[in-house]
Amino acid sequence: MDYLYCPDLKNRVVQMLPFTTLLSIDKESPQPIYLQIANNVVNIIREGQIKPGTMLPGTRELAKLLNIHRKTVIAAYDELYAQSWIDVIPRKGAMIAQNLPDLKPQRWNEPRLSSYGEFLTVPFYPMDTQTPVSSAPVLRLPEFIIDEGYPDSRLAPLDLLNREYRNRAKQAAARKWLPGTLAGGSPLLREALVSYLLESRGLNIQTQHTMVTHGAQMSIYIAASLLLQAGDHVIVGDPSYFLANKVFEKLGARLIKVPVDAHGMDMDAVEQACKKHKVNVLYVIPHHHHPTTVTLSPERRMRLLELSRRFDFAIIEDDYDYEFHYSSAPYLPLASGQHEGRVIYIGSFSKSIASSVRIGFMIAPADFIRQAIQLRLMIDLRGDHILEDALAVLIQNGDVGRYLKKANKAYFDRLNNICTSLQELKGIIDFERPSGGMAIWARFNKDYPLAKVADAAAAKGLYISRGFQSHGNLRDGNSIRMGFAAMNIGEMNAAIEILSKVLKAKI
Amino acid sequence: MDYLYCPDLKNRVVQMLPFTTLLSIDKESPQPIYLQIANNVVNIIREGQIKPGTMLPGTRELAKLLNIHRKTVIAAYDELYAQSWIDVIPRKGAMIAQNLPDLKPQRWNEPRLSSYGEFLTVPFYPMDTQTPVSSAPVLRLPEFIIDEGYPDSRLAPLDLLNREYRNRAKQAAARKWLPGTLAGGSPLLREALVSYLLESRGLNIQTQHTMVTHGAQMSIYIAASLLLQAGDHVIVGDPSYFLANKVFEKLGARLIKVPVDAHGMDMDAVEQACKKHKVNVLYVIPHHHHPTTVTLSPERRMRLLELSRRFDFAIIEDDYDYEFHYSSAPYLPLASGQHEGRVIYIGSFSKSIASSVRIGFMIAPADFIRQAIQLRLMIDLRGDHILEDALAVLIQNGDVGRYLKKANKAYFDRLNNICTSLQELKGIIDFERPSGGMAIWARFNKDYPLAKVADAAAAKGLYISRGFQSHGNLRDGNSIRMGFAAMNIGEMNAAIEILSKVLKAKI
Repeated sequence: MDYLYCPDLKNRVVQMLPFTTLLSIDKESPQPIYLQIANNVVNIIREGQIKPGTMLPGTRELAKLLNIHRKTVIAAYDELYAQSWIDVIPRKGAMIAQNLPDLKPQRWNEPRLSSYGEFLTVPFYPMDTQTPVSSAPVLRLPEFIIDEGYPDSRLAPLDLLNREYRNRAKQAAARKWLPGTLAGGSPLLREALVSYLLESRGLNIQTQHTMVTHGAQMSIYIAASLLLQAGDHVIVGDPSYFLANKVFEKLGARLIKVPVDAHGMDMDAVEQACKKHKVNVLYVIPHHHHPTTVTLSPERRMRLLELSRRFDFAIIEDDYDYEFHYSSAPYLPLASGQHEGRVIYIGSFSKSIASSVRIGFMIAPADFIRQAIQLRLMIDLRGDHILEDALAVLIQNGDVGRYLKKANKAYFDRLNNICTSLQELKGIIDFERPSGGMAIWARFNKDYPLAKVADAAAAKGLYISRGFQSHGNLRDGNSIRMGFAAMNIGEMNAAIEILSKVLKAKI
Repeated sequence: MDYLYCPDLKNRVVQMLPFTTLLSIDKESPQPIYLQIANNVVNIIREGQIKPGTMLPGTRELAKLLNIHRKTVIAAYDELYAQSWIDVIPRKGAMIAQNLPDLKPQRWNEPRLSSYGEFLTVPFYPMDTQTPVSSAPVLRLPEFIIDEGYPDSRLAPLDLLNREYRNRAKQAAARKWLPGTLAGGSPLLREALVSYLLESRGLNIQTQHTMVTHGAQMSIYIAASLLLQAGDHVIVGDPSYFLANKVFEKLGARLIKVPVDAHGMDMDAVEQACKKHKVNVLYVIPHHHHPTTVTLSPERRMRLLELSRRFDFAIIEDDYDYEFHYSSAPYLPLASGQHEGRVIYIGSFSKSIASSVRIGFMIAPADFIRQAIQLRLMIDLRGDHILEDALAVLIQNGDVGRYLKKANKAYFDRLNNICTSLQELKGIIDFERPSGGMAIWARFNKDYPLAKVADAAAAKGLYISRGFQSHGNLRDGNSIRMGFAAMNIGEMNAAIEILSKVLKAKI
């Protein structure tokens, strides 16, 4: 790295540049101060007033110079770093990057050196290009993000998990494991799951019924791959979790979509579908349906189990959202009922602890798990067994339980808060209060097309989804999941204020 | 857990039962002592001489009583625990399990509580049941493990990675990311890969040619899934990495196996195969072939690129072992040559830093990466973006480079050491010194069948593989990869001493 060769530049700038003038701040501006600073630095770089390789003043110094809080300067530098305008040199500070984002030569287009400009001319899987996935890295982030329902990692015991991870990583046992024994997950975590799932949701299982995966999505992928062959029929809700639908479609299965109302999937429609087709699999999200957040009622759960026995189909029970309930206790999973091994039960700690903790699980008959592990070996060998061990310890010593209690309480407050705020947008946004989970299903009045709302919000620093058009249900085309868990009440109020302004500007 | 309610039982047994008589040991028996103890305990449980809920003596006490090493008692208790005969109570000790394995009601068969005893009657993928994968957790570990070639995580900058992880996890930016932007990997890591791969191996790419995966295996799985359809032809080495073969077979591809000699894949055989069949993909591990550790020569690399252009097939270049070289500098990857976008390049940090750090990457044409990201979304959404960010920082600030230098030096010493040790087993073990990597391809004399060697070694606390029978090549059936990187020289010498004893006992 070039920049390592100019340590002598340190602090030079502090004496040279009149930062109080260059980085003038307008405290009345709607633009946050940290962004003003970042943008000003970008401007003086562009204008050549400050050169690549130059050190910026330390955060303490600049905070003093500008008479603002040091955290604001840190946020500004983070932003500059995220946009690649500065490099951060450990124990030295922030330096203007040698390769500036919009100035560097396009060296990768030289044909003599690289051949990745050409496209491989081989058949691809046909996929929906509508899916809102960007393959280019997005380096700039909006100030507020209304996600589709993720936990707030600030509440999660990530420090404890990290400490346990460090402790275990240093132990010799962490390096000792037999090849092939970890594809199903760390033995400790599988053991911990057995008691955790018994205590939290009445699943009476042994370790051979458990498997750790890289998140609920991988469980869905593996279960579906084992259960489905091309031409098979899968019953899903209408609408349903679109990435599960994509997995089933990729495997060549035919989707039978049944309506989802306030009590979950319509079981009469399921029965009719079973009479018409040989149904192989039904995919259900009993708490809380994705995207509409409804809970499958106990009566329908009983009926579903009865139908699965009568028509002999397997159930993929995606219970990713079991942990968060506010109005009442959760219903026990289908997997705890009389299903004679027909239920594949799926859960995830990515949804209950933090989206970065990529650990999910699958509960199924032992022979199914054995084959699932074989498939998992092919997909990605195994997970991070040290992290899995560390999570097992946190489950067993009660840290996870304590965190979930705390998070339930916080999210209950956040749900109350967002419901109150959204009441004031009645007529524009329509919703039913969910009994649990981390999102509200918000149906926008069709006079407020979400794509336009999202664009207008983005300009004001708020990200919201452009809508669930890809769910194949026009009725829900102008709706989104509004996650209320990841932001605290202050942040959410600021986000809703931006949204209100956008909506009331009558776009 | 029931057993938590009887802590008062502690130590009761020690005074009551005549363990020296009950657990009589035969030091002449071929059965290991720990197994004798375990079996004897099972017998006295079965005969009712010791009841569920009773505490066993501590490992120190029992070792003293029986006049054996404490490690042997620990091994016996581990065995009993693995078989579910005892429960281990933290800070208390071992207790006869309340639910004994062959006495307890098969509660998981009780239809009222759980139905996971029954097997799901749905079609599974046919898979090789020979693969040495245990679905049951293995809690007991041998003292020494000769793996198939993994790095020594003690040398790796895991502390630095962990510190960076913690720092980033606390930053607001770590919680802010746009849905769908991380399936290809953290933007920071993709950016870091661009310069890292240019500097370390001459790959001249942009971020849109990069993708972060959950390890090299996932890259293989995704690349193969996009490239292959049922009936397609794939050229692989004979032998080759068996989990890649399994992926190709699962996708319905037909394998064409070409010989691998001391310079890698036989290119004449590749050309002949291409003349006979429409070949879609060739899978190659240029440094160092798995399992035989040979390096593909520069001449064959040129020839392979020429053949791929002439017969228009894609190359999956699995360069997982690029980082470690001792005799000479590594050859530049095929991906840095003139391949016109036909090479999918795969690498992994799990193989260069630590097997628990599950981060790999794939380099391919931008359109291919775009579709690979779509597929990855279906498989497991994304990786741990905070860990990916942290790794990016360690790459960029040079920590990864410094570690690799240090590890190369250490592994060179370890390679020298194991070569010297194995020289003394000439005639029993035959091998060629590899030019790099972390393993030796050790061919055992057929008078020493590996399954028997492995069993005898296991009884003495050493794990080695039972052989590569599953590689479908009888010539290599009695061979294994002996990883020399994960153990230091003292540990390896102790391991080889056990192996020597086993071999010289003329089993």
